[in-house]
Amino acid sequence: MSATFDPATARIAIVGAGAVGCYYGARLARHGHDVHFLMRSDLPAVRRSGLNVRSIAGDFHLPAVQAHASTQDIGPCDLVIIALKNTANDALPELLPPLLKPGTLLLTLQNGLGNEESLAAQFPTHPVLGGLCFVCINRTAPGQIHHIAQGRITLGEHAGPALPRTRALAAAFNAAGIPCETDDSLARARWMKLVWNIPFNGLAIAAGGRDTAAILGDPNLAQLVRELMREVMTAARALGHELPETLAEDMIARTRTMTEYKPSSLIDFEEGREVELNAIWGEPARQARAAGQPMPRVEMLHQLIAAAQARGKR
Amino acid sequence: MSATFDPATARIAIVGAGAVGCYYGARLARHGHDVHFLMRSDLPAVRRSGLNVRSIAGDFHLPAVQAHASTQDIGPCDLVIIALKNTANDALPELLPPLLKPGTLLLTLQNGLGNEESLAAQFPTHPVLGGLCFVCINRTAPGQIHHIAQGRITLGEHAGPALPRTRALAAAFNAAGIPCETDDSLARARWMKLVWNIPFNGLAIAAGGRDTAAILGDPNLAQLVRELMREVMTAARALGHELPETLAEDMIARTRTMTEYKPSSLIDFEEGREVELNAIWGEPARQARAAGQPMPRVEMLHQLIAAAQARGKR
Repeated sequence: MSATFDPATARIAIVGAGAVGCYYGARLARHGHDVHFLMRSDLPAVRRSGLNVRSIAGDFHLPAVQAHASTQDIGPCDLVIIALKNTANDALPELLPPLLKPGTLLLTLQNGLGNEESLAAQFPTHPVLGGLCFVCINRTAPGQIHHIAQGRITLGEHAGPALPRTRALAAAFNAAGIPCETDDSLARARWMKLVWNIPFNGLAIAAGGRDTAAILGDPNLAQLVRELMREVMTAARALGHELPETLAEDMIARTRTMTEYKPSSLIDFEEGREVELNAIWGEPARQARAAGQPMPRVEMLHQLIAAAQARGKR
Repeated sequence: MSATFDPATARIAIVGAGAVGCYYGARLARHGHDVHFLMRSDLPAVRRSGLNVRSIAGDFHLPAVQAHASTQDIGPCDLVIIALKNTANDALPELLPPLLKPGTLLLTLQNGLGNEESLAAQFPTHPVLGGLCFVCINRTAPGQIHHIAQGRITLGEHAGPALPRTRALAAAFNAAGIPCETDDSLARARWMKLVWNIPFNGLAIAAGGRDTAAILGDPNLAQLVRELMREVMTAARALGHELPETLAEDMIARTRTMTEYKPSSLIDFEEGREVELNAIWGEPARQARAAGQPMPRVEMLHQLIAAAQARGKR
């Protein structure tokens, strides 16, 4: 099955029907794919009124959505797209098995490091892929999705370079209106994204609630962004990933054009949701230290965010 | 004059009549020393009602205080005690000259690093001494001083070990009810104090307004305190200062007994006063980097506090 994976006829499950899962799942369903959503709190609203997508790539409404209350109700699929917050990954060993049959592909669209590794360890007979989402989407109400900016996915195999199935999946995404390209090194792509996420998502919280413009508008924080980026790049290189020399400055220049962008971790933090601490800061710091190239500033950022979150909970 | 410095007959000026200057100056005046205070906003109240000291070492009232509006009014002294916040050090080149005559001793009671160096550079013919104050004092209203805890001063020469004049001054302090000992390495003593001040004063602000108990009560911040202390100790050793191996753990254990202590920098920050950024974080980080032993966490703490302060000002 996995050798002949055909997105056109694939039965697809979306696990984690937040903004990312609903948006990409809705695009695929609208294009005619057989998409099944696992839903909890949004289930009654979506069964009643479907999914409503406001998008810079074109608004649309899906009146009939295959929404289910459990993965048992969905049953075996060819492709499982995991879009849970990775702070909920503990639920996967129980959630996924009903969706699996021999060869089922597992695609995680989650942030940061460690998601593919943990899927591969838990489901060693299944191919694992990862997608990096460069997108800004909010779920504004049950069944109401607002796609605000970008939307691109970078797709890769957890183990090794892109395969025919990777390219087939990317082609299906593109056909469904989701810009998607494959990458021969998912790990390297994830580290490149961390060069941005670690400083900006981190300082947005640790510097007391600031958007990207406020971070770059303060000379001390702008300097700290540079130093954090340099630390992440040095660690990524120690792990064998080649990165362009100008990456940090390019990212900073691009971020200046974004004006007042609120990183997703800050939104999570402000709304009392759990921040993806381990995937964005903890696991990268652990891998860097294991490679003999520790990231002291990143470790400190991790500690400060963890402390801010612990206080928020009390 | 400097060889025969006699505290008993010395004319003493106090520059910077905040809590520290008023408290120690009042103790000396009460013991019969000829003490002259430079005052600004407190001048009318102190001329009218004197200085009132509530102290764990005994309350007292000084009805007649030699308070002056300018250093010109005070004139040449044998000993000048500088107790300004070091964020106001720019004023010293103008404030001090009227107080000087050949041999006038300069004693700074200010926090952190760089104070003696800058006095020595500006007034190269004068002996410079430094005192570390281990004390908790507030100025609760004009002329009203509240001495809450401790009170000890560690006294040293800026250049070299303690001299007869250092010991004579310490003896005068002790006789006036100010516990005081000399130290043969002022720089080492300052670094030891920084092992505490850098993490606790720093995280009190950077972790969003927390006292020592709240810092040590959070496992991530407690760990970060340890790592910051280790960084400072490693840098101090690279600068040639021997430090006891158990210093960090001893300080943490002692701090746990202090319950909810608010570091002075947090009080400054919360009350909108300038934090002693350069003396406590900037200059130590600069010296460490110059010695080839950078302190990345301390540098980051410096940047976060500077950013918090800049935002507070807007």
